Amino acid sequence: MERIKATYYIETPFDPEAAAQVLAGEQSSGTFVAVPGETDELKHRFAARVESVVQLETVTEPAIPGAVSASGTYQRAIVTVSWSVENFGYNLPVLISTLQGNLYEIRQFTGLKLLDIELPPSYADHYGGPAFGIAGCRELTGVQGRPLIGTIVKPSVGLSPEQTATLVQTLAESGIDFIKDDELLSSSANSPFDKRVDTVMDVINRHADKTGKKVMYAFNISGEIDEMMERYELIVSRGGTCAMVSLNSVGLAGAKKICDQRVLAIHGHRNGWGMLTRHPLLGIDFTAYQKLWRLAGVDQIHVNGIQNKFWESDDSVVQSIKACLTPVLGGYSVLPVVSSGQWGGQAPETYRRTQTTDLLYMAGGGILAHPMGPAAGVTALQQAWQAAVDGLSIEQAAATYPEFAKSVEKFGGK
Amino acid sequence: MERIKATYYIETPFDPEAAAQVLAGEQSSGTFVAVPGETDELKHRFAARVESVVQLETVTEPAIPGAVSASGTYQRAIVTVSWSVENFGYNLPVLISTLQGNLYEIRQFTGLKLLDIELPPSYADHYGGPAFGIAGCRELTGVQGRPLIGTIVKPSVGLSPEQTATLVQTLAESGIDFIKDDELLSSSANSPFDKRVDTVMDVINRHADKTGKKVMYAFNISGEIDEMMERYELIVSRGGTCAMVSLNSVGLAGAKKICDQRVLAIHGHRNGWGMLTRHPLLGIDFTAYQKLWRLAGVDQIHVNGIQNKFWESDDSVVQSIKACLTPVLGGYSVLPVVSSGQWGGQAPETYRRTQTTDLLYMAGGGILAHPMGPAAGVTALQQAWQAAVDGLSIEQAAATYPEFAKSVEKFGGK
Repeated sequence: MERIKATYYIETPFDPEAAAQVLAGEQSSGTFVAVPGETDELKHRFAARVESVVQLETVTEPAIPGAVSASGTYQRAIVTVSWSVENFGYNLPVLISTLQGNLYEIRQFTGLKLLDIELPPSYADHYGGPAFGIAGCRELTGVQGRPLIGTIVKPSVGLSPEQTATLVQTLAESGIDFIKDDELLSSSANSPFDKRVDTVMDVINRHADKTGKKVMYAFNISGEIDEMMERYELIVSRGGTCAMVSLNSVGLAGAKKICDQRVLAIHGHRNGWGMLTRHPLLGIDFTAYQKLWRLAGVDQIHVNGIQNKFWESDDSVVQSIKACLTPVLGGYSVLPVVSSGQWGGQAPETYRRTQTTDLLYMAGGGILAHPMGPAAGVTALQQAWQAAVDGLSIEQAAATYPEFAKSVEKFGGK
Repeated sequence: MERIKATYYIETPFDPEAAAQVLAGEQSSGTFVAVPGETDELKHRFAARVESVVQLETVTEPAIPGAVSASGTYQRAIVTVSWSVENFGYNLPVLISTLQGNLYEIRQFTGLKLLDIELPPSYADHYGGPAFGIAGCRELTGVQGRPLIGTIVKPSVGLSPEQTATLVQTLAESGIDFIKDDELLSSSANSPFDKRVDTVMDVINRHADKTGKKVMYAFNISGEIDEMMERYELIVSRGGTCAMVSLNSVGLAGAKKICDQRVLAIHGHRNGWGMLTRHPLLGIDFTAYQKLWRLAGVDQIHVNGIQNKFWESDDSVVQSIKACLTPVLGGYSVLPVVSSGQWGGQAPETYRRTQTTDLLYMAGGGILAHPMGPAAGVTALQQAWQAAVDGLSIEQAAATYPEFAKSVEKFGGK
């Protein structure tokens, strides 16, 4: 019988093997005394199994509150545990409850982070995955051979639909590929969702009729199920190509329901992610996280960016991009969304470390605040990526491309 | 205009007031340079506002990775920030993205935990909240004046529907009020959901016909939206009174869709909760968490238990119970579910510290492994609670009640 494997980074005041056994017990039988009906045969079939324990460093301070060490030391380890697919069948929420449920409560751990998940082949028969992925998003936007260049409507909250549409007009004329709502805006007092879709799609459709280029706009449909479905339908009816969902806020069941419609590309925003990963020994690593969302069918997922304005290291961002570009079960292609403080200056380093242009590269202020105007802002980003692929340094790129040179002047010192 | 307030426990290497301003900016305008259209009027209307900053202790080691302190010290503080309801209207996922979104990514914080949320009165007009709550769950089970006594089917995974039904029969005859599926089981190879509902409800309905007492069984419907809706309908059609949802795994939009049906009581399981709260300076406190789920309409929510088998302190559990029993906007009654390693011995301390019997008190092994059988196990729990209300100590209770005395013998030493 196929098994699902999960790998955890743990810390424990006890023997790591024993602590791992507690985890396996809690997550497959789970009570403090043996009860009638718990036969050996049943245990063998449904019990979680500790597959391996690799000891790492020892520390003297626990990472998070838990049992106190008698010896004063805490052992870290990489632990792999497996479950039979029979335990949950093909049910992502129950899979999550198994891999990420009460095990975070176990006092035998003073640190526990889910690093990776290995799914059995049969999952490929049960999950359609992203309806568009990288190739589909390229097709919808008509962009080949370079990253999709995108931006976020700013200020996040406060513009009227008309103001938003005017901005979209400017951006479309600037040659942008992708625009999104901010995650803080879905429907607000002065920007009702339906009105915004109407006015923005008027601009986008007119621009497409004239130029043949349809800008992808990710309208933030995040909300309750019926509301999201209605908003999805509205976008479809107005000729839109994308909807955005705040994955953590909406949750898995809701997001999957939206992905299952398979008509619009789904822009997966990971806001709230810091809470799940920021501590090195608590929560979930992006490698595991993005796999679950790819199974659910998200076409685009945020990965932060090199030299971002947030806390995350470049190494972590690079690892996230690579995780997205690694096939899951041979497919489930997802487009990494690079965002946060990007202005083009990070393109050479991003390309050097990831060797890919299969990205949605988002710049906010980097486009709209460009000294020569937004069109130059978009051009500068395209130039930055051409330079990156050509192996130019920032200085060489600035010497070659005037629009990019202005970006360096304005944003390079920050 | 009404405002929503959120209180955070923060740590920062910078001036806490300045760090709080970064939070407010990120969560309402959010880009690194000023952009056209960001007028003062618009800012005033939609900007988040720092309401108060109360400085606490200073430490020399950061709680989580972030900016490094030049002075070598990190300041902790309680910070309150507010947003106009105009920013999001009545949209819980967008509210969550605002209160718990990218702010966890801000490098200016080396610790950030959402402690509490204060909702404006108009929320009461937009959210029905729990359809049953404490009074409704009491009515459905016919239990007054003492906690509802419940148990979990164990082993969690592996029993056939027939074996489960046999166990339910035993428990029903033992006088139990409530039984639930484990969160690890929804539909498994040898316990398909529909079959389990059929066989279990046969037993429960027969028992109700005979005795007038209908045991509440929380079938774990956690899964995808359509699947959950079908399972919900099946439970209704077979005369069931409750469905269980793993809140974190299903997510807010999915769970609310289920709560909105308002025919079954919804048992909200918080597995995965440890990940969100276990670090003292990361994530969300239960006080804030349970408010969101009450708005969504959950009737019962897990709070762990006194002297539990997990990492959580008794103080924290007591605070969670009190949070659940505090009205939100004058209502939204939710039944706290006490669970984890409970056998009755914790009843006196639980009552002493919370002064309530408005609880669903769950014991697993404490009932099924009782030396005199499950009926005695249920009786012992009822006795424990009577003794608790009467102010008896464990020793006094054991001297008074023989079934409880056996519990003390078997479980008291653990």
